[in-house]
Amino acid sequence: MKRVLSTLFLCISSVSYAKTTAPENVIMIVADGMGPAYTSAYRYFHDDPDTRAVEQTVFDRHLVGMSSTYPARVSGYVTDSAAGATALATGTKTYNGAIGVDVDKKPLESVLVWAKKQGKKTGVVVTSRINHATPASYLSHNESRRNYDEIADSYVDNKVNGQFKADLMLGGGWKHFIRDDRHLVNEFKQAGFHYLDSYDQLSDLPKNQPVLGLFANGGLPWALDDSNKHRLSAMAKAATGQLENKNGYFMLIEASQVDWGGHSNDIAAAMAEMDDLAKTLEFLESYVAKNPNTLVVLTADHSTGGFTIGANGEYAWRPDVLHTMIMSPETIAEKLSEKDINKAFAKKLFNFALTDVELAQLQRDKANAEAEVKSYEAAKAAGKAEDLSKPKEVVWVLATSVKHLLDKRTNTGWTSDGHTGIDVPVYAFGQQSELFNGLQDNTDIAKKIFTLLGKN
Amino acid sequence: MKRVLSTLFLCISSVSYAKTTAPENVIMIVADGMGPAYTSAYRYFHDDPDTRAVEQTVFDRHLVGMSSTYPARVSGYVTDSAAGATALATGTKTYNGAIGVDVDKKPLESVLVWAKKQGKKTGVVVTSRINHATPASYLSHNESRRNYDEIADSYVDNKVNGQFKADLMLGGGWKHFIRDDRHLVNEFKQAGFHYLDSYDQLSDLPKNQPVLGLFANGGLPWALDDSNKHRLSAMAKAATGQLENKNGYFMLIEASQVDWGGHSNDIAAAMAEMDDLAKTLEFLESYVAKNPNTLVVLTADHSTGGFTIGANGEYAWRPDVLHTMIMSPETIAEKLSEKDINKAFAKKLFNFALTDVELAQLQRDKANAEAEVKSYEAAKAAGKAEDLSKPKEVVWVLATSVKHLLDKRTNTGWTSDGHTGIDVPVYAFGQQSELFNGLQDNTDIAKKIFTLLGKN
Ligand SMILES: [Zn+2]
Ligand SMILES: [Zn+2]
Repeated sequence: MKRVLSTLFLCISSVSYAKTTAPENVIMIVADGMGPAYTSAYRYFHDDPDTRAVEQTVFDRHLVGMSSTYPARVSGYVTDSAAGATALATGTKTYNGAIGVDVDKKPLESVLVWAKKQGKKTGVVVTSRINHATPASYLSHNESRRNYDEIADSYVDNKVNGQFKADLMLGGGWKHFIRDDRHLVNEFKQAGFHYLDSYDQLSDLPKNQPVLGLFANGGLPWALDDSNKHRLSAMAKAATGQLENKNGYFMLIEASQVDWGGHSNDIAAAMAEMDDLAKTLEFLESYVAKNPNTLVVLTADHSTGGFTIGANGEYAWRPDVLHTMIMSPETIAEKLSEKDINKAFAKKLFNFALTDVELAQLQRDKANAEAEVKSYEAAKAAGKAEDLSKPKEVVWVLATSVKHLLDKRTNTGWTSDGHTGIDVPVYAFGQQSELFNGLQDNTDIAKKIFTLLGKN
Repeated sequence: MKRVLSTLFLCISSVSYAKTTAPENVIMIVADGMGPAYTSAYRYFHDDPDTRAVEQTVFDRHLVGMSSTYPARVSGYVTDSAAGATALATGTKTYNGAIGVDVDKKPLESVLVWAKKQGKKTGVVVTSRINHATPASYLSHNESRRNYDEIADSYVDNKVNGQFKADLMLGGGWKHFIRDDRHLVNEFKQAGFHYLDSYDQLSDLPKNQPVLGLFANGGLPWALDDSNKHRLSAMAKAATGQLENKNGYFMLIEASQVDWGGHSNDIAAAMAEMDDLAKTLEFLESYVAKNPNTLVVLTADHSTGGFTIGANGEYAWRPDVLHTMIMSPETIAEKLSEKDINKAFAKKLFNFALTDVELAQLQRDKANAEAEVKSYEAAKAAGKAEDLSKPKEVVWVLATSVKHLLDKRTNTGWTSDGHTGIDVPVYAFGQQSELFNGLQDNTDIAKKIFTLLGKN
């Protein structure tokens, strides 16, 4: 009966928790594309095969439920990131592609904007462009996620009670915020924002000043390629320090690139993004221990790639070679395209030794791709290329080849370069985290946060 | 703050729950192969597209957590059904293939056997052979799941305190229980068991007599093909009535064939098995309302087939054609193999109209398969077949063709004809169901049930 008693105890302690007021700080984490296969796989990626037990991950400690992700009926059962983020941000289902607007394209209030109106500070920390679908759904309204420049403009133009919607924005996006037609970074600076453009400046943010940090032209580099492989956790850490104030804050953190690993069927990139997210969550565990008036909720907007742990009839998944990788498959492919591929060179890039079969496959794929480009160029020079479709770029072919090699090594399966409709896991800890227990819809997550922030 | 108060209330009511004694009746349901894609997909399969909202399913009402499924380290990260069931039944991880024994092949006590020792009645209700991996792990010990006859024999030979381990067994298995070398059905009868071999006898079970019901040679027919498409729920209903007694009971229910739908990449068969399981769970909902001293726990041993809701880059899943199907793809294939395929005939079998492209594909696949068989037979007749591999059977080719047609129609993805390593959902309701909240390992589920049944 020990277990029954400990449940009794846990439940009593959560009762006294519930009696306290709503959390002062709410940190919502969206891991874009992180279906349940990703969190399960991360356990095995993270596992030390030399110990007897499989080690628990930070995700395992905080699972409380799952969430359905389907968009408004007009878009079927499989959501895109815009409709998914709009549901999580506003509590309303909408059509795929919609940013913070409903099926009639009417603007919807987000939990971030509501929090701002309640006098809280607000922030967004992402590894994509800060005007990408997920952060944009918390900060903007647009009939299409593709209107990147419009969305960036709205970050300056659309205010709440005369204030910028976000007090802190960290991520990528120079190409949208420093344009020929409009220099938004300068506009932010003139409005009093502190601007930074490299990670090392994160440790030195001025207190009581709004902050804009842009670290890349578009999204940040893959975690595997970045100067700081844990850049999401570094940004999140800086952000909590910056946002703390007596009225509390609402922060959106997005692990944007789990999704991109899924879209490009790249298990190495996906697991490295998961590792950065895990570090972020571990930091927040210790943060909540020190700041118990904080709620952390983590979920995904959908799953990506139809990723499966095992494939092809084989009962195995072997993530061990991924542990030691030092650059992304895309970067490996770029380097492979530049020099003759031999065993030593490949080992330097993969950081593990390829088999003869693997090496021969890469060489063959490269030779074929180069031959196709060459014959296309010859046809073009002879004016005979009209009926030919443009051949695939050698780097693209090599990246695909590298990813296939890793899929075979690890026995990873994929069914799509798009999204799938599986329910996603929900993790929560800190004050009022028990509200997120069980199965809920993505819109319920926003509704619960609205309730915690005093909106009925 | 209404939500906070309702959580407070829920928690208080669960505290008073926890104060009561352990449940008298424990019903463990294993949905073999039912990863989270299956329960998510069932929501969309079950949805009425003519209503505005997507309807909640019985699963949605009772999700409490998830479970990891990996086997003992020697077998990697992807489990088979034997190791999975042994973990759920005994709380110990073992190698793939093991039935109720540990990695050293030593026998392990199951929660069913422990319950029997405590004076409870016990039962197993499955849609597979009753000596298949999952029920066998609760009732037997064998170094290999393939030793079906040995396992069947053990059901008679291995007693607990002079009693048969199970007071009720319902499922398939004539070929193992009525054999030339041993007629186990007669042995059961001689030992006082009531025997039945058709579903209609389920409504007429004698009180206070142990029961053996076998309804098929091997596993039961697919739900789609069976005389009762909800045979699992019918058996479960009869079983609860039969097992009720003042000391309570432990019952294992297995929805065995969700897994088989996954193995054969058959979305129509899988969804029909899910529907039978949903009906079973709905019955148990009403049963627990009337018998609140009952705990129901439902989980899966693993996921099968690498099934994904959507595939091929398309953001869609279209289960609507599956709603009206009246026979399994395998049965459709058999019938297609017997007659010329035309539009009217195909419509009769599928119960929806095929497109010209779909029809032509079926005709082409059949013609090719028949031609291959014919040329093989000709070569054999001429004594020249030695170097040829045997061609695929026409019915097999047609079944694959029918399943591909449905995959395209529904936009369903698969990566394997085996298992994958994703965590599986856990559902629980009734007394002490809150013990199963959050992420747990499959072995924890057995450990919690042991604790509830008084074993420390
Ligand atoms: Zn997304
Ligand atoms: Zn199984």
